[in-house]
Amino acid sequence: MFKVLVCTDCGETQPVDHLELECVRCSQPLRVEVDIPAADGNLASIAKPGARGLWKYQSLLPFAASVDPVTLGEGGTPIVPLDNWGDLIGVPNTYAKLEHVSPTGSFKDRGSAVLITRLRELGVRNAVEDSSGNAGASIAAYCAKAGINAVIFAPDSAPAAKLAQIEIYGAQLKLVAGARGNAARAARENSRTPDTSYASHNMHPYFVEGTKTFSYEIFEDFADGVALPDHIIIPVGNGSLYLGAAKGFQELQTAGFEFASPRLHVVQVEACAPIVVGAEAGLERPVAVAPETTIAGGISIGDPPRGKEVLQTLRAFGGTAVAVTERAVWDARAELAEREGLFVEPTSAAAFAGTRRLRELGVIEAGESVLIAVTGSGLKDPQPTIPAS
Amino acid sequence: MFKVLVCTDCGETQPVDHLELECVRCSQPLRVEVDIPAADGNLASIAKPGARGLWKYQSLLPFAASVDPVTLGEGGTPIVPLDNWGDLIGVPNTYAKLEHVSPTGSFKDRGSAVLITRLRELGVRNAVEDSSGNAGASIAAYCAKAGINAVIFAPDSAPAAKLAQIEIYGAQLKLVAGARGNAARAARENSRTPDTSYASHNMHPYFVEGTKTFSYEIFEDFADGVALPDHIIIPVGNGSLYLGAAKGFQELQTAGFEFASPRLHVVQVEACAPIVVGAEAGLERPVAVAPETTIAGGISIGDPPRGKEVLQTLRAFGGTAVAVTERAVWDARAELAEREGLFVEPTSAAAFAGTRRLRELGVIEAGESVLIAVTGSGLKDPQPTIPAS
Repeated sequence: MFKVLVCTDCGETQPVDHLELECVRCSQPLRVEVDIPAADGNLASIAKPGARGLWKYQSLLPFAASVDPVTLGEGGTPIVPLDNWGDLIGVPNTYAKLEHVSPTGSFKDRGSAVLITRLRELGVRNAVEDSSGNAGASIAAYCAKAGINAVIFAPDSAPAAKLAQIEIYGAQLKLVAGARGNAARAARENSRTPDTSYASHNMHPYFVEGTKTFSYEIFEDFADGVALPDHIIIPVGNGSLYLGAAKGFQELQTAGFEFASPRLHVVQVEACAPIVVGAEAGLERPVAVAPETTIAGGISIGDPPRGKEVLQTLRAFGGTAVAVTERAVWDARAELAEREGLFVEPTSAAAFAGTRRLRELGVIEAGESVLIAVTGSGLKDPQPTIPAS
Repeated sequence: MFKVLVCTDCGETQPVDHLELECVRCSQPLRVEVDIPAADGNLASIAKPGARGLWKYQSLLPFAASVDPVTLGEGGTPIVPLDNWGDLIGVPNTYAKLEHVSPTGSFKDRGSAVLITRLRELGVRNAVEDSSGNAGASIAAYCAKAGINAVIFAPDSAPAAKLAQIEIYGAQLKLVAGARGNAARAARENSRTPDTSYASHNMHPYFVEGTKTFSYEIFEDFADGVALPDHIIIPVGNGSLYLGAAKGFQELQTAGFEFASPRLHVVQVEACAPIVVGAEAGLERPVAVAPETTIAGGISIGDPPRGKEVLQTLRAFGGTAVAVTERAVWDARAELAEREGLFVEPTSAAAFAGTRRLRELGVIEAGESVLIAVTGSGLKDPQPTIPAS
């Protein structure tokens, strides 16, 4: 399939075998542009017969038909109605897409499957990644399957279950003190050797090629776009799911489907809200912050490298960015478990607290429908401690 | 749909609205017999249009077509090839069915969805269950969704993550000292009030109605029975998945499909192997044991109430029962993570250790294919301690 890398900032085109993660001209992050086949009536018509999960959509991914996927069974996650909780917040038509029902317990598996397939295709032997936990565990798992050595840099404050998970996959775990950004710097510094690839879920353009399938599945599950939810709510740190969700809907429109895309909203926590601050001030880029302590460690990213892209996407998709309190996250986590039997990690609970806030603000109107991404399992962090406020 | 309860021991038939969990005549466990529709060529032909997961197979479940399922998105779990690990043990055609990729992280969700749907249909307000952790968490989650109060009795030695999970769903958690059987006795004693139902995953006949869909999915995924694996390996404590797997294949034969069923093997740990001892001695019932300490807590059942059924099934399905050491479980857990990116709980790792043993014994022959059930996520018990041996 024809594909090319494009700079997300200056638009410079570079060949897809360009292995650096930044634009040759302006050093900003890249995205993949793929040649989207024309759909014949419904999305199933371009699906791969017999395939399940995200590899159904292989014709929309940046690989040749002969690709040998590195797969652990990712994608194809369920969508369930949340009537009980929806009634509580005044949005009866609330749905959740259960991305935690994934091989390693988070949505990151979509991105890792595609990224590690690409790295294996390139013959990479060593991969380095930084992560607050979920992406690190996911990359470690797919590297194990692919026979690639993985080194994962994580903040030493990450939950014990996530760290144990990274290590059992045989990855080298390197704990880094201080803010999440320190782990990113350490990973980047340790991936400058010739035989090592920086398998960054934030920077590598192939990661979003996996997360875009989130929207393909929503499109297919809601009657091929006929009955899409009005709003989709996503917790955003680096934005790897948020940007993927947007790319997925854009590509379906390119494929010839006619539909109004759901509005794509961003949720952050007050302890770390660079996107929200940037959006509210009408800026082109987020306002970098030093994150305060938060139970939503998965979105504690003070200076997201793709922040400009996130803000552009927010405007293009009619979205609103909101920040929620620690207490609101804590409460949402308990409400979901007690009313819906849904045990989510605190980072995911933030999206639910944000949904409630968006309803209070009137962004979500009475009678509208909402889909919320459950990004990670509650088992990833079963006994979090709420910061004193 | 016509359905009836039948005693698994004396065969006495009783009406399906008989609410006790034992036979009126001999006090042994019951099973449901449903009227199986004739299949028209393939299993998809009797599937419910638009349904996903196990509710696709609603016409094979003991409910009227108008039933309102209590669902959290269970079923439809992926099957993945394990080439790396399969090569290691000399079984290149090894597959795993990833039951941990389920809403609460274990296969129990199949049984809970069907059982709690039944309890809600009956108007039950209070449910009591006993569990080493996974079934308790699953029943608690489905009760939360259904608005049923749940009380879960668990051994005080259960892993912290499982206990935290039970509690967040809003269930009352009651810790019981000593062996697993003490929790079962306490649950039974506390479910004798008129408005309370004993939602036992071991005793309630509707639980197996959920787990039987495990085999429907295998049948459909392996070309409608044309290319089924030669062997299926299941870790067995009470046998709620094992008995369901057998019932699923039997019902497909009743529906008119012609195929040779996979052989269904039982794996236990040496620390608690009542089925293995019973099978090796050619007995009709297991030999009750006092379990020793084991990392495979999910199958530490010294006197399984459906043990006679398990032994009958083992013989009917050409199965072998093997017991494995703690060390073999521990090693399999690490091998799977490091070679396949598959993080399983110790109880699931036992099935893999058992597969290796069955190959060594020659029960699995060179060139044959094997499917192993991954019953629970590694995140359920991320840092187990191996008992001193």
